[in-house]
Amino acid sequence: MIEFSADYIAQLLDGEVQGDGATKISKLGKIDDAEPGAIAFLSNPKYEPAIYSTSASAVLVEKDFQPRQSIRTTLIRVDDPYSGFTALLEEYHKLTNHNKAGVEEPAFIHESATTGENLYRGAFSYVGANCQIGKGVKIYPQAYIGDGVTISDYTVIHSGVKIYAGTIIGSHCVIHAGAVIGSDGFGFAPQSDGSYKTIPQLGNVVIGHHVSIGANTTIDCATLGSTLIKDGVKLDNLIQIAHNAENVEKTEIAAQTGIYGSNKEGKNCVLAGQVGIVGHISVGDKVTIGAQAGVGKSIASNEILLGSPAFDIRKYKRAYAAFKNLPDLVRRINELEKKY
Amino acid sequence: MIEFSADYIAQLLDGEVQGDGATKISKLGKIDDAEPGAIAFLSNPKYEPAIYSTSASAVLVEKDFQPRQSIRTTLIRVDDPYSGFTALLEEYHKLTNHNKAGVEEPAFIHESATTGENLYRGAFSYVGANCQIGKGVKIYPQAYIGDGVTISDYTVIHSGVKIYAGTIIGSHCVIHAGAVIGSDGFGFAPQSDGSYKTIPQLGNVVIGHHVSIGANTTIDCATLGSTLIKDGVKLDNLIQIAHNAENVEKTEIAAQTGIYGSNKEGKNCVLAGQVGIVGHISVGDKVTIGAQAGVGKSIASNEILLGSPAFDIRKYKRAYAAFKNLPDLVRRINELEKKY
Amino acid sequence: MIEFSADYIAQLLDGEVQGDGATKISKLGKIDDAEPGAIAFLSNPKYEPAIYSTSASAVLVEKDFQPRQSIRTTLIRVDDPYSGFTALLEEYHKLTNHNKAGVEEPAFIHESATTGENLYRGAFSYVGANCQIGKGVKIYPQAYIGDGVTISDYTVIHSGVKIYAGTIIGSHCVIHAGAVIGSDGFGFAPQSDGSYKTIPQLGNVVIGHHVSIGANTTIDCATLGSTLIKDGVKLDNLIQIAHNAENVEKTEIAAQTGIYGSNKEGKNCVLAGQVGIVGHISVGDKVTIGAQAGVGKSIASNEILLGSPAFDIRKYKRAYAAFKNLPDLVRRINELEKKY
Repeated sequence: MIEFSADYIAQLLDGEVQGDGATKISKLGKIDDAEPGAIAFLSNPKYEPAIYSTSASAVLVEKDFQPRQSIRTTLIRVDDPYSGFTALLEEYHKLTNHNKAGVEEPAFIHESATTGENLYRGAFSYVGANCQIGKGVKIYPQAYIGDGVTISDYTVIHSGVKIYAGTIIGSHCVIHAGAVIGSDGFGFAPQSDGSYKTIPQLGNVVIGHHVSIGANTTIDCATLGSTLIKDGVKLDNLIQIAHNAENVEKTEIAAQTGIYGSNKEGKNCVLAGQVGIVGHISVGDKVTIGAQAGVGKSIASNEILLGSPAFDIRKYKRAYAAFKNLPDLVRRINELEKKY
Repeated sequence: MIEFSADYIAQLLDGEVQGDGATKISKLGKIDDAEPGAIAFLSNPKYEPAIYSTSASAVLVEKDFQPRQSIRTTLIRVDDPYSGFTALLEEYHKLTNHNKAGVEEPAFIHESATTGENLYRGAFSYVGANCQIGKGVKIYPQAYIGDGVTISDYTVIHSGVKIYAGTIIGSHCVIHAGAVIGSDGFGFAPQSDGSYKTIPQLGNVVIGHHVSIGANTTIDCATLGSTLIKDGVKLDNLIQIAHNAENVEKTEIAAQTGIYGSNKEGKNCVLAGQVGIVGHISVGDKVTIGAQAGVGKSIASNEILLGSPAFDIRKYKRAYAAFKNLPDLVRRINELEKKY
Repeated sequence: MIEFSADYIAQLLDGEVQGDGATKISKLGKIDDAEPGAIAFLSNPKYEPAIYSTSASAVLVEKDFQPRQSIRTTLIRVDDPYSGFTALLEEYHKLTNHNKAGVEEPAFIHESATTGENLYRGAFSYVGANCQIGKGVKIYPQAYIGDGVTISDYTVIHSGVKIYAGTIIGSHCVIHAGAVIGSDGFGFAPQSDGSYKTIPQLGNVVIGHHVSIGANTTIDCATLGSTLIKDGVKLDNLIQIAHNAENVEKTEIAAQTGIYGSNKEGKNCVLAGQVGIVGHISVGDKVTIGAQAGVGKSIASNEILLGSPAFDIRKYKRAYAAFKNLPDLVRRINELEKKY
């Protein structure tokens, strides 16, 4: 167990202790349900009442916080309690994140694969022929790295991730459990007898640096060329990215969204959950698409859209408000017609 | 093969045999496509014609069933044929469900993990450090149990399930293949340069007793504290539960629904398929949400909702009926305007 | 590396070389970003300008193509450049697709399982008791084949696929990574105390020939009898097929669509992405359902639908156009009312 004194934390955050500076802190908690030994923070005035009854051993508060009742817990006064707390979270995360390293047997690696130093390869993980794995990469148990895959430094591949042959992944990425990278794009040519002929999918997936991919998300390889997920893209769980899609930098996409084939998203977009984007269109920079929207045509930069098919969010909200009153509108028209 | 006589089944269900009581029954079937050796049931009068031609060796019928043609199959007259059949299903399931036990090598278990009796650990399954596994637990091949996970008695973890470190799972749960429990919540703080900084996700997932989780469903850990799935919750396949969500008791959620972060669902709710619920709201008890609905704000108990954004289902249906006739409404307004 | 001369390719495609017939071709590319050594094609006149600057070593063009500027690349004149390119793709695919065979240890196979010749069983794959595996089947690493499963000739099971006991799979199928076949249907009977009782799911999944199943797609077993996926069905990624659904021949379903329980789809249907279809209905032949549509009742053959609930696509589009102008419609009604 890792333990710090309130004094040490105050020093770390450039704050000031009021109360018992020797109090031992071993975990982080929320002000309204923290346990003894935890540190919490008070930022939103709404939670002020909780500070008088909290079980937390210490609470980060603003420099000028004035209690209105007696307080049992130790206070640490800082400039910004929320930022301070986030900094502690990160510190704690670094210290407690089990720094997995080495090889757990049995693990499979092809003799032609090359690996950097400080690698972790969990039990039952698989690394195919001609793979190039950088330094500090972690490959958790039961992950599959197909032939000819490149993974750059410090990327983490969680348990059960499946990476098809030929995929290229940058550095400092995190790919969560069960994600599938590089599966065949959905390409079938209809034949005259109504059956479908498979179109060979020969491309790959290329993922940039600092990309995060959620659990059970699927990213198809390109028919030819590459499906691109560029630097800093953050994908949530259960997302579908189809063949030849291109997701430009620093975009954030929420769960269960589907990006269909051969389209191109701009920089700094935000896509909410369960959005669908058809193939063969382009999306500009800084576009925001609301939850469950369906995008059927190209979008200019800076647009904010909602609806299926999607259009300007303010216009959508006004139209939807009128939609909710449609039966009343029908009644009014009936009455107008009666007047003739 | 397990075989029973029609007489034995009649005795089991407190029924009465008409025909050959010695007929051997070895499987269950549907009245319209059962094979010889099968038992079927007749409950819905719509299916009556099938009883005169069925190949089933026996059929459960109501006590007062009066055939209108000659019947070759053996009848077993019971109070409620459907309930009787369900009881047989369960009996059959218990008898035929291969009672897996023991360890198939190679399987990985850390020396610090503790396990109860009658455990099944399939080949290539992984149990990490400090895990506590109860008695009668079944861990199928290629399942991953991260460090410090607790699994209580008689829970079944199917093949390829991935459970991140620190997760707590109750007793008598069933987690289907490919589900991911405890992956990082989707938390990224936008920076001034447009990039995102990862917010450490330090919490865990806590699952109650008698919970069922569908194939390839994903449940994220909390940022801090726990994402809660309480007793008796039933989740279908491909569902997304985001960080810090709390699903209270006995709720049922259909496939492909997404529950976003930090919200709280009530007891005894029913969520249909492809529903989306935004973060930071609360849902009352006994709420029903229709398929593909989008819930954007808190919901009181007992509401029944549809639409995106969702509102009262009866009002939605009336508004949608008017929506389908909108072009006609426009035409009527055009005519009214012409009259001036 | 595989290399062909432009002359050889021209011969293969019954075409004619203009330029250097000895040029070595080792890969396929797109005309606007091909690298030296690649062959590309020009079919759409829109791309004509690219042919004057392309780095491709050769380009397939139409027989009567007349360049309007000087061209450095070698031309191969054929009847149909696109078809010719597709043929090359297939040829290339056959040559480069690593023909995996043999057993990578450790792999688990029960002594009672039978297997055909030319099998590939990857490391950490699992084949249960009484399985019957045909010839030329490929089982990639970490795939799970439960007890009593039948897989016919030349089917490919990608990494991490999970197939529950009793499933039957035809020949020439491809099942992509992470797909789950045969998990329990979502069946729970509500009890008087608000809790749910599990209804045993005793059926299986039966998959025909030439079926393609996408990554992380889930197909539940039937309660009784079989969930059927018939010959030539193509399923994209992250699709949910519930218990007792029946998908008839040659249907194509895009990503993230959900087919709920006990319904029956016709032949030659096309379902777009994120569609939801409720249980207990039937869908005719040659039906097309647009993206994000919700189908709540049975559909006759040849219909084309959109919306949630879905109706005729042309009517939907007209109604939606009027919906976008609803605020204006309200204003017009207000004015009409003022005139009285």
